[in-house]
Amino acid sequence: MNRRIVLFTVGRIALIETALLILPMIVCLIYGEYSILFCFAVTAGISLAFGLVLRLIARPRNHLIFAREGFFIVASAWIFVSAVGALPFVFSGSIPNYCDAFFETVSGFTTTGASILPNVEEAIQSQGLLFWRSFTHWIGGMGVLVFLLAVLPSGNERSIHILRAEVPGPMVGKLVPRLKDTAKILYLIYFAITLLETVLLIAGGMSLFDSLVHTFGTAGTGGFGIKADSVASYSPYCQWVITVFMLIFGINFNLFYLLLLKRLRPVLHSAELWAYLGIAAAATMVITWDISKYADCLWPESLRHAAFQVSSIMTTTGFSTTDFNAWPSLSKSILFLLMLVGGCAGSTAGGLKVSRVVLLFRMARRELSRLLHPRSVRVIVFEEKRADEPMLNSVALYFVVYMMFIGGVFLLLSFEPFNLETNLSATVACFNNVGPGFAGVGPTASYAAYSDLSKLVLSLAMLAGRLEIFPILLFFSPSSWKAQ
Amino acid sequence: MNRRIVLFTVGRIALIETALLILPMIVCLIYGEYSILFCFAVTAGISLAFGLVLRLIARPRNHLIFAREGFFIVASAWIFVSAVGALPFVFSGSIPNYCDAFFETVSGFTTTGASILPNVEEAIQSQGLLFWRSFTHWIGGMGVLVFLLAVLPSGNERSIHILRAEVPGPMVGKLVPRLKDTAKILYLIYFAITLLETVLLIAGGMSLFDSLVHTFGTAGTGGFGIKADSVASYSPYCQWVITVFMLIFGINFNLFYLLLLKRLRPVLHSAELWAYLGIAAAATMVITWDISKYADCLWPESLRHAAFQVSSIMTTTGFSTTDFNAWPSLSKSILFLLMLVGGCAGSTAGGLKVSRVVLLFRMARRELSRLLHPRSVRVIVFEEKRADEPMLNSVALYFVVYMMFIGGVFLLLSFEPFNLETNLSATVACFNNVGPGFAGVGPTASYAAYSDLSKLVLSLAMLAGRLEIFPILLFFSPSSWKAQ
Repeated sequence: MNRRIVLFTVGRIALIETALLILPMIVCLIYGEYSILFCFAVTAGISLAFGLVLRLIARPRNHLIFAREGFFIVASAWIFVSAVGALPFVFSGSIPNYCDAFFETVSGFTTTGASILPNVEEAIQSQGLLFWRSFTHWIGGMGVLVFLLAVLPSGNERSIHILRAEVPGPMVGKLVPRLKDTAKILYLIYFAITLLETVLLIAGGMSLFDSLVHTFGTAGTGGFGIKADSVASYSPYCQWVITVFMLIFGINFNLFYLLLLKRLRPVLHSAELWAYLGIAAAATMVITWDISKYADCLWPESLRHAAFQVSSIMTTTGFSTTDFNAWPSLSKSILFLLMLVGGCAGSTAGGLKVSRVVLLFRMARRELSRLLHPRSVRVIVFEEKRADEPMLNSVALYFVVYMMFIGGVFLLLSFEPFNLETNLSATVACFNNVGPGFAGVGPTASYAAYSDLSKLVLSLAMLAGRLEIFPILLFFSPSSWKAQ
Repeated sequence: MNRRIVLFTVGRIALIETALLILPMIVCLIYGEYSILFCFAVTAGISLAFGLVLRLIARPRNHLIFAREGFFIVASAWIFVSAVGALPFVFSGSIPNYCDAFFETVSGFTTTGASILPNVEEAIQSQGLLFWRSFTHWIGGMGVLVFLLAVLPSGNERSIHILRAEVPGPMVGKLVPRLKDTAKILYLIYFAITLLETVLLIAGGMSLFDSLVHTFGTAGTGGFGIKADSVASYSPYCQWVITVFMLIFGINFNLFYLLLLKRLRPVLHSAELWAYLGIAAAATMVITWDISKYADCLWPESLRHAAFQVSSIMTTTGFSTTDFNAWPSLSKSILFLLMLVGGCAGSTAGGLKVSRVVLLFRMARRELSRLLHPRSVRVIVFEEKRADEPMLNSVALYFVVYMMFIGGVFLLLSFEPFNLETNLSATVACFNNVGPGFAGVGPTASYAAYSDLSKLVLSLAMLAGRLEIFPILLFFSPSSWKAQ
């Protein structure tokens, strides 16, 4: 393995993180939080030192990046930024235990939104820290789209391996011939929608700070809020805005690009998009009906809660407007299954991805017909293209590994004295980057009760979920460390 | 589709069921239960009438059995025997609701052992009915091995399609060239082990009736007992005998045949066998350790409970010696995962099957190495043979369909007001033919609280699990009914 290029790239990431740390420092300046500002400054210093040292000692002899290097760069970069990003919480004393702070920061960067803080309003009173906590979501959302790609030396078309290792979904394509340009286009779209949401929230009476923080959480499909009741205390207008934007950020960004080019046809014919919207609409309708019976509220209110929670869970954001853990079984089961489905490929959402679910259903249907007609050959068409068999096999195997991973993490969590619902939903909610689960880790609860070891396991689950398992699996398998 | 051959074969099955109903009638005679005897006689009459009518009106023009007919014969036969087998419970008034009786009988024939009776000792006081209830397990166990095959006209080698549709596991092979002879061999082994267990239980002081009933439950890996506390009140010796025999009936029967032929090598090199025994041993050890801390009992007792429950759950039998729902989280989680794994292919056990799990793990490992070395070609070797790719793809897809089925049934059960643990474990326990689950459907509880509709859904889940999904899926998909 080309270890130097891995370390060298992580060094570059460290420099970028140093630059990104300036933003919360500005927020600290504005709010006059000088002691917190100092914590950020020290962190930025550490990050800068790491970056410079790595750039100096690991100057690579060649810039060859193969699959192995791609996986390693992605895995180590995400672990590194989280490890450093956790420091301000520890230095400031808001989250004194480093394990907790690491969990919280991994949760931020992976856009999970699972928190170890039982009450965020009490625990973090600094605006700078709250800003940083939510800002990690936004960075993570960028990261999963194109972050690492954008920081690579231009002209290195080898970095397609990084793209493959990082971008979610079964198929990875470039929008335009040059990777660098693809990255720029996706960035611009991300910025533009972020800006639009912020403006719409401000128009609804939210303060600039609150708007920014919630937009970060929405854009990265993260879900960290700044209030103990998430977004329940904001106006219905603001909740609807967030509902719609969560859905938007769960759509494949390539479609927005196609829309910009006025190429409507592939958008209108996107099987993934329609499945995504269809599932969301169906789930919202059933839950509206289900909770109308249970809670004594009028249907517009039920609809708002249902739409918000469906949008939040399916896009793996994790905001909430109500304690959905208290909902009837049917609604909870639907949300549980939505956690597994997740958003669209090529979006900032986590989960299995709608495109994979669609492909798995089509493969199951084909298998059924193959049993009846063993000699027939049936092709699966997806997004107007013939899906090739190796890709289909990969999708099926990804599902297998995905389920095994859930089983494994669930087993490791079972050393904790919590019930099956808590442990299983904690596993699923972290692994799919949702955030809140049910019962002991429901929207009104937190992950505080888990031991440090379990928090570490869940942190790895969040990373594995965000990077679609393989980079993390390879990073932690001894055999792949062998120099070759 | 050759509908006549389907109906004709179901007619044959009806005649066989008529003959099988004679056994519980004899039991009724011995115990002087004449009113129950009458109920059985009426049922036998109905079965006979059905059989004769079907044989007369559906005499087939040809005996061609293709894949479609194979699936339909298997699905309709299992549904038919359950529908008729439920009648004695209804006629006798022991289980007055037909839906309940159908659930109980499907649970019997599919060797699940899930019961809607909160207390079997109170509900069924007739020895004849208790015998029939457990006897269905034994018939079901035979059925899943070779039952239907054996009843087909000899010389019809086309019936390999029935074998494929019915025998569990990813690969189906004949032991000897002629199917009929394969069936006979498997039968003899089944009879011999049944006899051995009965004798060993009698030697331990169990009455003949109790020994028979529990052997039936063990042989079919069913799990219906005749006491409210399952086998908790029997001696440790009897519990150990049952532990060992549950494990034995969870082993691929082909291996016993090879042992008889003194061909040790394939047995000693069977990856599935060693994985099966290894998982069982590891699970037993961890659970022994886990429950020793919790319950204040000495380790030999913990070991006995752990071994019994592991053996019972992994082989999908469902007997219990203690209320494992009260065990600590780790032990319960292990049991939950074992429910999914199940026993070996080609045994009477349900679940995903160990061979599939082994293959899935190997495929996952290969996928990992394929990502690192995209151009390498790696072959998976299983049971000393090269596993061919179409079979591997089928295994992965089976897993996909299996998980989707669990998701679907779980969603349907969620209309019930029970918690996630109850509904999910009910789904998994029925679908994998285990029987008892956790919480509301734990070993000391029953499925009585579910609505008739949910019981029907669970009945179909049991059938789907027993027949490995596809026959039931095809049976209920309108498109496959089209005459072709």
